[in-house]
Amino acid sequence: MSKGDISRETNGTEARLSRASVGRLSLYLRRLDELLRDGSLKVSSSQLGEALGLTDAQVRKDLAYLGHLGQPGIGYPTRELMTAIRHTLGVDREWKAVLVGVGNLARALLRYRGFQQQGFRIVALFDSDPAKVGQRIDGLTVQARDELPTVIAAAGAELGLLTVPAEAAQSVADILVGAGIRGILNFAPTVLRVPPGVSLVSVDLTVQLEQLAFLVQLGGDT
Amino acid sequence: MSKGDISRETNGTEARLSRASVGRLSLYLRRLDELLRDGSLKVSSSQLGEALGLTDAQVRKDLAYLGHLGQPGIGYPTRELMTAIRHTLGVDREWKAVLVGVGNLARALLRYRGFQQQGFRIVALFDSDPAKVGQRIDGLTVQARDELPTVIAAAGAELGLLTVPAEAAQSVADILVGAGIRGILNFAPTVLRVPPGVSLVSVDLTVQLEQLAFLVQLGGDT
Repeated sequence: MSKGDISRETNGTEARLSRASVGRLSLYLRRLDELLRDGSLKVSSSQLGEALGLTDAQVRKDLAYLGHLGQPGIGYPTRELMTAIRHTLGVDREWKAVLVGVGNLARALLRYRGFQQQGFRIVALFDSDPAKVGQRIDGLTVQARDELPTVIAAAGAELGLLTVPAEAAQSVADILVGAGIRGILNFAPTVLRVPPGVSLVSVDLTVQLEQLAFLVQLGGDT
Repeated sequence: MSKGDISRETNGTEARLSRASVGRLSLYLRRLDELLRDGSLKVSSSQLGEALGLTDAQVRKDLAYLGHLGQPGIGYPTRELMTAIRHTLGVDREWKAVLVGVGNLARALLRYRGFQQQGFRIVALFDSDPAKVGQRIDGLTVQARDELPTVIAAAGAELGLLTVPAEAAQSVADILVGAGIRGILNFAPTVLRVPPGVSLVSVDLTVQLEQLAFLVQLGGDT
């Protein structure tokens, strides 16, 4: 089997992971980190599932994608499991990101410890407001939006965080895509279109709050 | 059929909606709002699906839960569809929410237009930092955390937005639950436990970014 075959096979496996299981892998990683800090060098599927409200079977099914790491009656080796999850998620490397739209949400994201801990580094800030350009925030200088292509190329940034108003989101996304950005995390409450080959994850906070209202209305059935 | 039966039947229908379809209903609502502003009094499932990257069949399946609103060859009446979605989501009423943890993310949420547009009203702010207590932000005064139970009862708040650090999140969640809060939107990067009857939606931004990294690694297959 050639290297190419293995690579395709790996991609095939990963492609079968649903968005939901990818989300769960992230949560397992968070929980494993806590368990490791508490000194647990082995963990069971029920330990992992319990804190997240998942069944053992669901946990074992998700982790089966990572290879044969678990041993019946013994559990999973914590460190190796974390390494395998990081590799599958693609966070065993550094990802450089640019952030466009410097408001309160941007400031919150810049100080969000979790991003750096998982290897996401915001390397440049952009805003269209001349009053903001030149401001220093957490060691970064806000740059004008027309600098985007040059800075992205020079920094080798692959991801873009979009915290601009809804009206501006599509045009900024187009600029990011044109500048070679491969993935966009969109916080603007609007539907964006990106070409094939570019990934998009949207965080619409109203959707989350509406989901909560729906659940409360049903009577707390989470 | 008694009123009780209808109610149970309604709940049964809603309970069958997955979290994913609830999320899609929110997105349809956003899209319908745009279409209505553009003057579209009727919409087709393909119009709705196109902007969201969904198939007609998926859209029709999701909307079938709302009753018999669509007509073959004619489509859905925009306003009635929006009313039905709002009713199903439980956002055809006002929801009062308190926000605990007044940092940059809190300030961003306070100014997030989408919340108010969909009937979510933040009625009180709390922080444990004496330096923040008494500050006025967007017309609200930051209150001390030990005021939580009294203020929640007086305001009739049902939802809590949690933007405190991870270490403080569970203890604040417990206080909110004790004070009668029925649903928590958690932004702290940690796993929370709430008792039955209380709903929890967690927004872990690192999970979203890891999902993006995973998709980019796969080569843009969103």
